[in-house]
Amino acid sequence: MKQFMDRDFLLTNDAAKHLYHELAASLPIIDYHCHLDPREIYEDRHFDNVTQLWLGGDHYKWRLMRSFGVDERSITGEATDREKFQAWAEALSLAAGNPLYHWSHLELKNYFGFEGHLTPENAEQVWQLCNKKLSQPEYSARNLILRSKVEAICTTDDPADSLEWHQKLRQTDFPVKVLPSFRPDKALGIEKQDYLAYLARLGSPANFAALTEALRARLDHFTELGCRVTDHGMDHVPYAPAEPAQIEAIYQKRLGGQMPTALEAEQFKTALLLALGRAYHAKGLVMQLHFGVIRDLSKRVFRQLGPDAGIDAIGDQAPITKLAAFLNALDETGELPKTILYSLNPNDNAAIETVMGAFQTGEARGKLQHGSAWWFNDHKNGMRAQLESLAAEGHLATFVGMLTDSRSFLSYARHEYFRRIVCDLIGTWVENGEYPNDETLLKQLVQGICHDNAAAYFDL
Amino acid sequence: MKQFMDRDFLLTNDAAKHLYHELAASLPIIDYHCHLDPREIYEDRHFDNVTQLWLGGDHYKWRLMRSFGVDERSITGEATDREKFQAWAEALSLAAGNPLYHWSHLELKNYFGFEGHLTPENAEQVWQLCNKKLSQPEYSARNLILRSKVEAICTTDDPADSLEWHQKLRQTDFPVKVLPSFRPDKALGIEKQDYLAYLARLGSPANFAALTEALRARLDHFTELGCRVTDHGMDHVPYAPAEPAQIEAIYQKRLGGQMPTALEAEQFKTALLLALGRAYHAKGLVMQLHFGVIRDLSKRVFRQLGPDAGIDAIGDQAPITKLAAFLNALDETGELPKTILYSLNPNDNAAIETVMGAFQTGEARGKLQHGSAWWFNDHKNGMRAQLESLAAEGHLATFVGMLTDSRSFLSYARHEYFRRIVCDLIGTWVENGEYPNDETLLKQLVQGICHDNAAAYFDL
Amino acid sequence: MKQFMDRDFLLTNDAAKHLYHELAASLPIIDYHCHLDPREIYEDRHFDNVTQLWLGGDHYKWRLMRSFGVDERSITGEATDREKFQAWAEALSLAAGNPLYHWSHLELKNYFGFEGHLTPENAEQVWQLCNKKLSQPEYSARNLILRSKVEAICTTDDPADSLEWHQKLRQTDFPVKVLPSFRPDKALGIEKQDYLAYLARLGSPANFAALTEALRARLDHFTELGCRVTDHGMDHVPYAPAEPAQIEAIYQKRLGGQMPTALEAEQFKTALLLALGRAYHAKGLVMQLHFGVIRDLSKRVFRQLGPDAGIDAIGDQAPITKLAAFLNALDETGELPKTILYSLNPNDNAAIETVMGAFQTGEARGKLQHGSAWWFNDHKNGMRAQLESLAAEGHLATFVGMLTDSRSFLSYARHEYFRRIVCDLIGTWVENGEYPNDETLLKQLVQGICHDNAAAYFDL
Repeated sequence: MKQFMDRDFLLTNDAAKHLYHELAASLPIIDYHCHLDPREIYEDRHFDNVTQLWLGGDHYKWRLMRSFGVDERSITGEATDREKFQAWAEALSLAAGNPLYHWSHLELKNYFGFEGHLTPENAEQVWQLCNKKLSQPEYSARNLILRSKVEAICTTDDPADSLEWHQKLRQTDFPVKVLPSFRPDKALGIEKQDYLAYLARLGSPANFAALTEALRARLDHFTELGCRVTDHGMDHVPYAPAEPAQIEAIYQKRLGGQMPTALEAEQFKTALLLALGRAYHAKGLVMQLHFGVIRDLSKRVFRQLGPDAGIDAIGDQAPITKLAAFLNALDETGELPKTILYSLNPNDNAAIETVMGAFQTGEARGKLQHGSAWWFNDHKNGMRAQLESLAAEGHLATFVGMLTDSRSFLSYARHEYFRRIVCDLIGTWVENGEYPNDETLLKQLVQGICHDNAAAYFDL
Repeated sequence: MKQFMDRDFLLTNDAAKHLYHELAASLPIIDYHCHLDPREIYEDRHFDNVTQLWLGGDHYKWRLMRSFGVDERSITGEATDREKFQAWAEALSLAAGNPLYHWSHLELKNYFGFEGHLTPENAEQVWQLCNKKLSQPEYSARNLILRSKVEAICTTDDPADSLEWHQKLRQTDFPVKVLPSFRPDKALGIEKQDYLAYLARLGSPANFAALTEALRARLDHFTELGCRVTDHGMDHVPYAPAEPAQIEAIYQKRLGGQMPTALEAEQFKTALLLALGRAYHAKGLVMQLHFGVIRDLSKRVFRQLGPDAGIDAIGDQAPITKLAAFLNALDETGELPKTILYSLNPNDNAAIETVMGAFQTGEARGKLQHGSAWWFNDHKNGMRAQLESLAAEGHLATFVGMLTDSRSFLSYARHEYFRRIVCDLIGTWVENGEYPNDETLLKQLVQGICHDNAAAYFDL
Repeated sequence: MKQFMDRDFLLTNDAAKHLYHELAASLPIIDYHCHLDPREIYEDRHFDNVTQLWLGGDHYKWRLMRSFGVDERSITGEATDREKFQAWAEALSLAAGNPLYHWSHLELKNYFGFEGHLTPENAEQVWQLCNKKLSQPEYSARNLILRSKVEAICTTDDPADSLEWHQKLRQTDFPVKVLPSFRPDKALGIEKQDYLAYLARLGSPANFAALTEALRARLDHFTELGCRVTDHGMDHVPYAPAEPAQIEAIYQKRLGGQMPTALEAEQFKTALLLALGRAYHAKGLVMQLHFGVIRDLSKRVFRQLGPDAGIDAIGDQAPITKLAAFLNALDETGELPKTILYSLNPNDNAAIETVMGAFQTGEARGKLQHGSAWWFNDHKNGMRAQLESLAAEGHLATFVGMLTDSRSFLSYARHEYFRRIVCDLIGTWVENGEYPNDETLLKQLVQGICHDNAAAYFDL
């Protein structure tokens, strides 16, 4: 029996151990997609206790607690931080097979030096241990980033954002690149109640051309501050082409206060997303497309807590045909940017990868990417499924690898988790004689996936 | 090489063996969903031979025989029971990788003491062995239940059923709880030809309110006899909300002999299922939703044999968005009952579990459940996939575990099969250092999943 | 650590090694579905170099190169054959986990005696080695087939094809059966621009009855030349029944130069496919249905290279309900032929197998078949998933096994790949005590799947 989460955690053979310990473990981290708050980095935030750090905004953990029958009072309610930690310890201690079990224990080990496993009985001891450490200067936001060997962080920002904190950060001596990413979901959200209020933040563009121009101007501002990657979240990739006059009419209708039909909304989104895709291509930026989500499912909880409350789910209404047609529309004119596709539905893995394959060109190694197992798939089986499918349908050696997608300064442990899984997969192939034990090739493969490919792909 | 299906069958490491033999194997069985006939239990049925017992009504076995090219005569036709047993032995002997291979051999071993494997050559010997035992008193329906250590059985019953046999059973000294379950599929089947005839059995309710009232009255009768769980079978979970006046109009139209449109049928079902869901919540009952099925596919066979003839299949037309909207409609008013979701389509696993997660509350541990791998998924890979996915997306420690869903008194072997798979999964995590070797936690996990969670969830 | 792709490649235990080496390895090959050119067989084609042989028409390899960022010039463009081979060596050397990695190295080993692994560094040496061998008589098309122990080859042919090369081949002493297969996709393609031109090749049938009659006459010609199997490629299996008069009107409309609506096209295809299915049943032919594909995705590449250019993908718009209804329409009148179902979408595995199960009869062992993992699924995981799912949902022992689906004379290595995976799966069950170590049964299982079932099913 292996020790619980020891040095060789998830590494099942000698080749895997070699690849991880010798080639992967010490590589710096490129976190090309996360939700860290640049202000917290600038202000070098400290945390009063581990509940603040762990449960303050982490809806993954809230869900696990609710599933375990914990009352909302002890999750997002009025219970004390200590009470919430106890409830968390109870829910987590039995969460066998859940990625939070592994992530949390990697964080306890790597950042707090706690080698055991959290139980209701030792929760008080862990609470004390963590809080004592958190009061030390080494546990500030910036120091947590530095000790994690992070090279670059790409945050997620609205086009209307001033990027004030990014600008301030550039004037500090903080050696880690903290770059804004362009996420214009609100500009595309023509069917939302507050769309006109949002347009006001972009200067209330009078027509569709002015809207795209306003977004391009904001994109210029982002790239001046180092933006390398953009992002779009949606239930499905839209594709309903329409004439420019139709798009203009839809936009004017909305400016006039009327809501678009479902078809009109899709036509508008198609046109705007195509325009943005062309702008990304012209600037050499990467386009990320996240789809396959149903958001804010429980209206009851949404009214209490708003978005990002742990009430989202995997959707099954993201047609591959539309994704393919959308990519083709950009590809036909040679304006398809480097693109990363993420579906929340794991059933889409092979379909996504084969669609990608149809649009690959000599423009870049792995110009189209299947993003690392996302959100609900970000666990051992989900990661392995994405890696094995990508290897079989695409070209694994071009993969840009892991991102945290997180709001927490401890989530870099997920890169370790990913690297262990990558090395175990490739090591197992070597061990079984399915790939040669050729150190030159293995080094390119492993270091490419864990670091080098991202550096090249995002031009960092 | 391990011996064929020996004591450590499916247990691949020491931790798994420990969990199964020490913690799981001897637990009593709660069979919270099956299709046993309460009359056969009351009358303590005996079986003349193993063909009656095994092939009399088991459409799983019929399918396997047809796939092997066995003529219908030797399946449901006029061949002798001995001939049918021979045909079964031929089809089964080569059915490597099929759950029936394992279930049948577990049954031969546990109930008849036969340790070998069935072949066309030894079929005569097995036939004699089984039939001799079946003639003994220990092989009556009740005695088979008792020796299987069954604590409670929830049958499946129509609201219009008199529950005569359940009532009679309560007056015997049979120590096992045999409880009715409320399955009002026929009351929802407004698009069926025989709907008015069915309504007559409910007293021909004159309007929609009277229909729901009639069903509530039947539900009272069911709960008086110990009913703890309800059940609904459907191709997809409906969600098409409509005004009460519309629902009434649809019902009156049907009473007038006209068939509803597809949309009207869905509106009617949505309204009635919501009304029933609220009633279940008020009474603390569990709601089971079974979906993702295409029933009675071969019209040729259906005309010969009727329903449950082995001619059903997995459907791909059960939208997750409707399921989510239906659950939300009950959740919004605080009237969502404890609910178990079963899709016949294994692709739905992760989506179902993430939808569940959005509606979990402190009301119960694992208030929403992903039901154990159902029907065509009820095999080693299917069970393991459900368990691993549930662990990753939900909280495995709250799972209410296995049910037989069977018409046979030997199917309790499926609980053993499930327990071995659960213990192997968790044991493997322990062996690999992915979960700690902490006996206190492991006991809660394993005994919870195999028995205790169901006892608490169904309040038995 | 096992040696790279040694004698026991993919065989993970002693039982698996025994099954492969003793029972499977030396069986002859029945390649019941491929795209070999009968003219190349008749003319006994030689290849000037390995680039011609490997990269001339293999869009699988083109995709892998594009994914690796190779410029089109070095794939299908004007680069020299040697330059293309170098680009291929670079892309392949890092393609861990890709089936092309294994297929290519099996081919290098089996046909050229190269035991190492291809790298950019040794590409020149491999180029020389292969080209030298290719210049020898043993490397002609026919000799490659003979040394691969091929018993029968079923090519893929249009009904309008003269079958000239098949006729000529019958007059040679080539001992391998080379049989035409009937693939009337163009006759069904009523929505295509060039449909009338195609009809001209069938004698411009004046009405729908004449069209079906023309196809039946061609089918007679095919069967005279030994045709045993037919084939249909489509995005989904159509099912939109219509009256004969409607079908006739649709056909006349198209003859008049008008395009059908989407519904009309589906109605037409339904009627014609049903008519063909009945004809296949009458002649005892096997019907293959290939679906779940999106073809020719990148319009840019399609304009350059035409079809089969590596720009296809897995589709998600092939409803199981239509497949089921189509099969039922033939089954109801007792006219469902032996049928093999292939979906390109691996999510369809279990649904397909359960639909099949509803229509199995005593007419043949495994009358309905789930085809071997197809195209993008034709890799270790995909094959294993198909085998395990088929074993659980159907009856593995009836499976007709592998086909190459290839344009290359070296692709028989895929049969070896398949047999190793089959033997490893079954051997692992034996090793784990999940299936008995009964040589009589194992021989039937393994030799059935690898050879005997196909011989019986296709009546060869």
